Amino acid sequence: MSGVAEPGRRTGRRPGNLDTGSRILDAARTRFAQNGYDKVSIRSVADDAEVDPALVHHYFGTKRQLFIASIELPVDPDFVLDQIRQTPPESMGAAIAELILNIWESPQRDSVVALFRSAMAGQEVDLIRNFLLQVVLRDVAPRVDNPVGSGSIRVQLVASQLMGLLAARHVLHLDPLAQVPVGELVDVIAPTLQRYLTGHLPAQS
Amino acid sequence: MSGVAEPGRRTGRRPGNLDTGSRILDAARTRFAQNGYDKVSIRSVADDAEVDPALVHHYFGTKRQLFIASIELPVDPDFVLDQIRQTPPESMGAAIAELILNIWESPQRDSVVALFRSAMAGQEVDLIRNFLLQVVLRDVAPRVDNPVGSGSIRVQLVASQLMGLLAARHVLHLDPLAQVPVGELVDVIAPTLQRYLTGHLPAQS
Repeated sequence: MSGVAEPGRRTGRRPGNLDTGSRILDAARTRFAQNGYDKVSIRSVADDAEVDPALVHHYFGTKRQLFIASIELPVDPDFVLDQIRQTPPESMGAAIAELILNIWESPQRDSVVALFRSAMAGQEVDLIRNFLLQVVLRDVAPRVDNPVGSGSIRVQLVASQLMGLLAARHVLHLDPLAQVPVGELVDVIAPTLQRYLTGHLPAQS
Repeated sequence: MSGVAEPGRRTGRRPGNLDTGSRILDAARTRFAQNGYDKVSIRSVADDAEVDPALVHHYFGTKRQLFIASIELPVDPDFVLDQIRQTPPESMGAAIAELILNIWESPQRDSVVALFRSAMAGQEVDLIRNFLLQVVLRDVAPRVDNPVGSGSIRVQLVASQLMGLLAARHVLHLDPLAQVPVGELVDVIAPTLQRYLTGHLPAQS
């Protein structure tokens, strides 16, 4: 989220104030939750926030960057996605398991758990679903779309195992699973994710 | 929960009233959440509810039955566990997937989702964790405890995949995963569960 949280620092001038930034983010959150990512334009957000579209671009950059800022993510998704992009599909299972499980051991864990719990409680569920579908999963699905049409289900199965692991380890604190060191757990989970990504799925045959 | 919800019907006499039953359940919930299943006695619950222990037995049966009643489960866990008990370990993955996923398609779905969401929100999380650990997982773990000591992690990995699938399909409603027919999804998930239950787990070698 570099720079986004403190828009005033990006240039010497300050074309608005913090209230303007907050107003744009509020408008973006509402729009993205109601209409989904694709149907939202920078102009519609600007109209709702009663500012000039150029100001939205100035504060938050592209529509994708505005969307990411509106979720208030604890981790920059592009940091994760860049590393997955550099990984060939046949070793993505281990790469994803290692990346995600290590984020949960970092200082970001509390924020990740909080976001997950609020999604489960029904708060901002549309926003979070759209984020998962439009930013995270859309990026990976085309790379594992074999046979054609299976990519989305494949990455959503991966998401299901990761969410369940977060729930078991960091919400319910099930012992002994919560005590297994991350390195060992990566080795246990990676084959599951790899099968979902590139293995034969009965439903797709 | 046959009979348990309407204690007065079990015999011709009515040694208490509905308030007594509610008071016992309230006391049981608090005790099981604070102390865990093992450390709770019928006597301690009776003391807290200021009733005779015999009345607790009369209303709710054994400690296990009292615990199940105190969770207010939408499904009788013994219905599920009895079927798993009759299944050999080497085909348990498919049996569990089919049982659980079909419950989610039944009229009980809303109650299951509500229970899961309240656990994720932190409500009664101790109660629900203890239920999972002491009633559900303890029953299956000894049957897949190979090598010795791996049984608990194995069943908790199964629980993680099932919880994640519930979250993806019935809380976040991720499409297309939420649209996959149950029969197809059982075939996709069963090999994951089976590997967790009886496969080689790197951490256990």
